[in-house]
Amino acid sequence: MTEVNRVWRLRKRPVGDITDDVLTLDEESIPEPGSGECVFRLNYLSLDPTNRIWMSDMDQYMPPVELDAPMRGVVCGTVIKSRHPNYAEGQIVSGLGTWADYQIGTPATVNPMGDTGPMSALDAFSTFAVVGPTAYFGLLDFGEPKAGETVVVSAAAGAVGSIVGQIAKIKGCRAVGLAGTKEKCAWIKGELGFDAAINYRTEDVSTALAAACPDGIDVYFDNVGGPILDACLKLMNFKGRIPTCGLISQYNAAQPAPGPHNYPLILMRRLRVQGFIVLDFADRYPEAIAALSRWMAEGKIKVRTEIVDGLENALQTVKKLYTGGNTGKLMIRVKDASGVNAERLSV
Amino acid sequence: MTEVNRVWRLRKRPVGDITDDVLTLDEESIPEPGSGECVFRLNYLSLDPTNRIWMSDMDQYMPPVELDAPMRGVVCGTVIKSRHPNYAEGQIVSGLGTWADYQIGTPATVNPMGDTGPMSALDAFSTFAVVGPTAYFGLLDFGEPKAGETVVVSAAAGAVGSIVGQIAKIKGCRAVGLAGTKEKCAWIKGELGFDAAINYRTEDVSTALAAACPDGIDVYFDNVGGPILDACLKLMNFKGRIPTCGLISQYNAAQPAPGPHNYPLILMRRLRVQGFIVLDFADRYPEAIAALSRWMAEGKIKVRTEIVDGLENALQTVKKLYTGGNTGKLMIRVKDASGVNAERLSV
Repeated sequence: MTEVNRVWRLRKRPVGDITDDVLTLDEESIPEPGSGECVFRLNYLSLDPTNRIWMSDMDQYMPPVELDAPMRGVVCGTVIKSRHPNYAEGQIVSGLGTWADYQIGTPATVNPMGDTGPMSALDAFSTFAVVGPTAYFGLLDFGEPKAGETVVVSAAAGAVGSIVGQIAKIKGCRAVGLAGTKEKCAWIKGELGFDAAINYRTEDVSTALAAACPDGIDVYFDNVGGPILDACLKLMNFKGRIPTCGLISQYNAAQPAPGPHNYPLILMRRLRVQGFIVLDFADRYPEAIAALSRWMAEGKIKVRTEIVDGLENALQTVKKLYTGGNTGKLMIRVKDASGVNAERLSV
Repeated sequence: MTEVNRVWRLRKRPVGDITDDVLTLDEESIPEPGSGECVFRLNYLSLDPTNRIWMSDMDQYMPPVELDAPMRGVVCGTVIKSRHPNYAEGQIVSGLGTWADYQIGTPATVNPMGDTGPMSALDAFSTFAVVGPTAYFGLLDFGEPKAGETVVVSAAAGAVGSIVGQIAKIKGCRAVGLAGTKEKCAWIKGELGFDAAINYRTEDVSTALAAACPDGIDVYFDNVGGPILDACLKLMNFKGRIPTCGLISQYNAAQPAPGPHNYPLILMRRLRVQGFIVLDFADRYPEAIAALSRWMAEGKIKVRTEIVDGLENALQTVKKLYTGGNTGKLMIRVKDASGVNAERLSV
């Protein structure tokens, strides 16, 4: 075990794209747990679009990361010292932590990972910590898809979007995805079973959407906002639903972006737009995990994880989320995490 | 009875404000009922913000009025000839008709007004045909106000808005209204019991809203869209609701208006924006009418009706809706309607 603790700290708030001076990687000492705390070493750091929100001081759903504080992230780690009965040394925990090799955990921030059934802790963390429940609750609770309806999802080759489309198929819907490369489109259509895939970088989105959605759109699962939202609004059917999970097209905007020009269609078509954060569903995670596990075991949901080694690469890697550079779930592997990779946890 | 039937016809679609050449008033013959139809003479013509939508060919919730067709309106009339068992001569009917002295009615468009209890048919038509149920279902079904919450409504001295604020008070909420004159603000605060009234023409809306809503906004009942929507978004509490009833600030826009700049707050605050049309609640009208009648009898809901005599004044009068020129429900009285004014209908 190294004696050095590398910590990414937020040094300035990004304006427009994330630049290299936004975070610094500092060498610090390994913390000691206080009473009621544990210290864990980081195995995996989840990189998520919301990271850009936390870096900024835009109005947001949690307090932004303070300047000079460690960068916040969803983490999976192994307890090395415990002063709380919830944690035992060697135990694998996950939750909300920081971009650091070693960090303090409390029951308010991280919890031991429960029984992962036939799945490795890595797969469970990758799919169940955030993105699976986000897709599950956002689509089912707020999208309310019915068999035969058309579900459109943006960022469809992303971690959440790829699962949204597959759940839509399970529910008997037509699934249409928007993604930014030929390869991503081929993946969601060829491997994941989407009915249609639109390359929003090379195709005229309105034309392609109209062709892909001959019966209009009943549910638009919005991950991006911006022009794609406007294009979808034009095709929404009466009483359509727009679960709003992300607005990634706007996070890096240096200037406030205009709102959707087609906002009046929310009135005219009697649409429902519902913003949500998966944290609101914390007490129902077991329901989502049970359903997702079953569908994954049945081969109905496939996930892809893109793992980059080295905490030192976190800053360069997180940028991929905003340039369309990744497919599926993006993570940093920090330490030798073979236990996490292979181990089937049981409670 | 005159032998001439005056009919307002749509001659061009308005661009920007409604101009005098948009409609013409023509003298035509009185129609004869076909089989399954009645002919009724118009007593009252309801003027509603949605009239401007119907005149345009913007994407809307019903087909727009066709060029050269009679202008559409919500009407109350007296049957003069019937060839359908639903209608008897002398019976008072209401529903969707046209801006014309005499017109054809079918069960798909107009129905005999039911029992109006202690209320005159005029009062029942004025409050129950459209605006009362709009306020009732929009606020209660989609706003879901809870005692102690803050409800903000725009166009608060209008027919719908004035009822929304009073229902909010009945439900134990803080009611804050925006209106465009000192007199309107005095009316909603002094007579209707709103907790605060903001003159959006003379006050800084964001500052005044923040002062009037010290605990934020839980429900914003949107009648106007535009800058007032943006100002309300900034103050919305987590999981707030925005029933969207109208976007009157945009109907007369000659150019497409930008969407709300603060749209991302729908995500960050987990808001629900729900467009609706009262027609969707047709099967639940009795529930709204029963509740509204009781509240009106108890003095908890007061309504104001502004009546202008003469079908020939309809075009000049409807303009008031878009310039803030009216208070409460705006109607045209077309014929001697003393029966409608006084009569308590019973089934």
